[in-house]
Amino acid sequence: VETQPQAYRLAVVAGDGIGPEVVAEGLKCLAAATEGTGITFETTEFDLGAKRWHATGDTLAADDLEAIKGHDVILLGAIGDPSVPSGVLERGVLLPLRFALDQYVNLRPSRLYPGEVSPLRDVDAVDFVVVREGTEGPYVGNGGALRVDTPHEIATEVSINTRHGVERVVRYAFDVASKRDRKQLTLVHKHNVLVHAGHLWRRTVEAVAPEFPDVTWDYLHIDAATIVMTTNPGKFDVIVTDNLFGDILTDQAAAISGGIGLAASGNVNPDRTYPSMFEPVHGSAPDIAGQGIADPSATVLSVGLMLDFLGYPELAARVEDAVAADAAAKDGTARTTVQVGDALAARIRG
Amino acid sequence: VETQPQAYRLAVVAGDGIGPEVVAEGLKCLAAATEGTGITFETTEFDLGAKRWHATGDTLAADDLEAIKGHDVILLGAIGDPSVPSGVLERGVLLPLRFALDQYVNLRPSRLYPGEVSPLRDVDAVDFVVVREGTEGPYVGNGGALRVDTPHEIATEVSINTRHGVERVVRYAFDVASKRDRKQLTLVHKHNVLVHAGHLWRRTVEAVAPEFPDVTWDYLHIDAATIVMTTNPGKFDVIVTDNLFGDILTDQAAAISGGIGLAASGNVNPDRTYPSMFEPVHGSAPDIAGQGIADPSATVLSVGLMLDFLGYPELAARVEDAVAADAAAKDGTARTTVQVGDALAARIRG
Ligand SMILES: CC(C)[C@H](C(=O)O)[C@@H](O)C(=O)O
Ligand SMILES: CC(C)[C@H](C(=O)O)[C@@H](O)C(=O)O
Repeated sequence: VETQPQAYRLAVVAGDGIGPEVVAEGLKCLAAATEGTGITFETTEFDLGAKRWHATGDTLAADDLEAIKGHDVILLGAIGDPSVPSGVLERGVLLPLRFALDQYVNLRPSRLYPGEVSPLRDVDAVDFVVVREGTEGPYVGNGGALRVDTPHEIATEVSINTRHGVERVVRYAFDVASKRDRKQLTLVHKHNVLVHAGHLWRRTVEAVAPEFPDVTWDYLHIDAATIVMTTNPGKFDVIVTDNLFGDILTDQAAAISGGIGLAASGNVNPDRTYPSMFEPVHGSAPDIAGQGIADPSATVLSVGLMLDFLGYPELAARVEDAVAADAAAKDGTARTTVQVGDALAARIRG
Repeated sequence: VETQPQAYRLAVVAGDGIGPEVVAEGLKCLAAATEGTGITFETTEFDLGAKRWHATGDTLAADDLEAIKGHDVILLGAIGDPSVPSGVLERGVLLPLRFALDQYVNLRPSRLYPGEVSPLRDVDAVDFVVVREGTEGPYVGNGGALRVDTPHEIATEVSINTRHGVERVVRYAFDVASKRDRKQLTLVHKHNVLVHAGHLWRRTVEAVAPEFPDVTWDYLHIDAATIVMTTNPGKFDVIVTDNLFGDILTDQAAAISGGIGLAASGNVNPDRTYPSMFEPVHGSAPDIAGQGIADPSATVLSVGLMLDFLGYPELAARVEDAVAADAAAKDGTARTTVQVGDALAARIRG
């Protein structure tokens, strides 16, 4: 039996907008969850995002990336600011991290906690996980533009999909499904239009399925999936889909469950060749940044996913239970970011 | 003053599954709407879809296309059948029609009729139009696959976007917005990731906006748009977006308003160089085909859009009012396709 390492190196990328505010509460809850366990996190802060870019023009330098690789896990707040041209930080910091660290599983659970009110009228149990591919598809940055800002401009975006890349995330999704009660996997794509990529996905699912005989699977086009997400989200158990469809579907999933304020994610490298990264699904929310009113719950839940990834499912459950209990106890009183963080940390301590 | 032609040539593509059933009711309501007006429709039926493909291997032959071009408008039921490999009919019939006939505006109104119950809990007025680009984007069929069905398979899908193609649909959307009460246009894209295509769209909207000084516009990423569609769809007035995002968003829009059974669309060629095509948003629904239970309302509403396009807004309004009144009068009794069609035709006659 291996002894699990008890001292972890945690890279902290607080980022832009509300990022630093929610990350502070995430770290507070991480400390609460590991208190008295002997598990420790040595943190290194990385100054990445709008401030750094304005000061130096850097997005993610080679040195940063090397330094980050020396860590076990990463906690990220949010990247993006209206003062920076759209795409510069997303394509310069966030996506390079996901890609360079081969975080090919973007894990996004959705659950409607008791007490939370869904915007959907008739909704019972919502409890599914989206396994979004993280390193391929239309996110590869393979595109270009010709004759920019003339009447003859042409702009392309190339979605690149490989059997290698699809198969590993599909197998991961089947594995997740096989460990759940319902053992149901839904592939979401658009293979009636995006025939090359879509059929690669479909054939790969067909090929991997026999390895998981207890998992049943079905298929939905992305457009139809948004309908089911509205009319019958309880149908979903595990969804596997490409990078862009996963981006779209997980925001909708957040909206129909507890809202984007409760949506957590893990950018996971299951092979552990590089650190995995945990981050709330929400963005930097510049409109409320600096006011101390952002909800840190999604970041705290992301810390829970991180603990689970590191092999501490009981600690992860304590974190999630704390957020669920806090959601159930909500009475509509406005709370500050720090107040929510304190309340969650207290519940985690028990 | 020009005299409007009163005799139209209508190409009818009933298609697969429930297509023929709903198209029959659409034609019945078209007859009802034009009764006694002197306006006539001479119909030509085109046998396109699964049956034809099985019998001959043809999808859309050059002859069909030429013959269809000799018509003023097209009414289409649905294309697609599980007996045909996914993509063959979509990429062989439906999309070639949209592309070859330069139907660059895919017009999809969403309205919550009084009496209809939205799956959303707190929703007031839903009344918006999605102007979906119809001839570019990831739908161009520009992609391929290498080493298919080997561990080294690579599949690509190329989204192609031109200033010409984007500008004409953006201008159309501004024009639609300028004629509505709220005069509000929302561009939906994902320009923080799909930077080349996304920035082309953004710059084009910025360039066209000054032509419509009374229209205000804003921007949402596609992922955020699915959230607003869930939490506050009343916010939307006119949405303009690319082919794929429009496909996704209009199915979600149908789901949060009257359901896919009420979602109509027009594939419009505003320059009238080729016939425009009107079709329900729903598919061929093979699971209920042949049973006479499909709801023809979306096809009837599409006939309404066709009448509006041909310059008969009063007749279009009668058709839409009939569907709205029928929806309001629904008491949960199951009705056949023909019963709904008869009821709508009777209301249209008044
Ligand atoms: C900020 C953006 C690049 C990112 C994405 O599109 O992946 C975000 O929307 C997300 O879902 O994490
Ligand atoms: C059938 C399919 C090719 C089509 C599309 O993707 O455009 C449909 O979903 C639609 O929205 O009209």
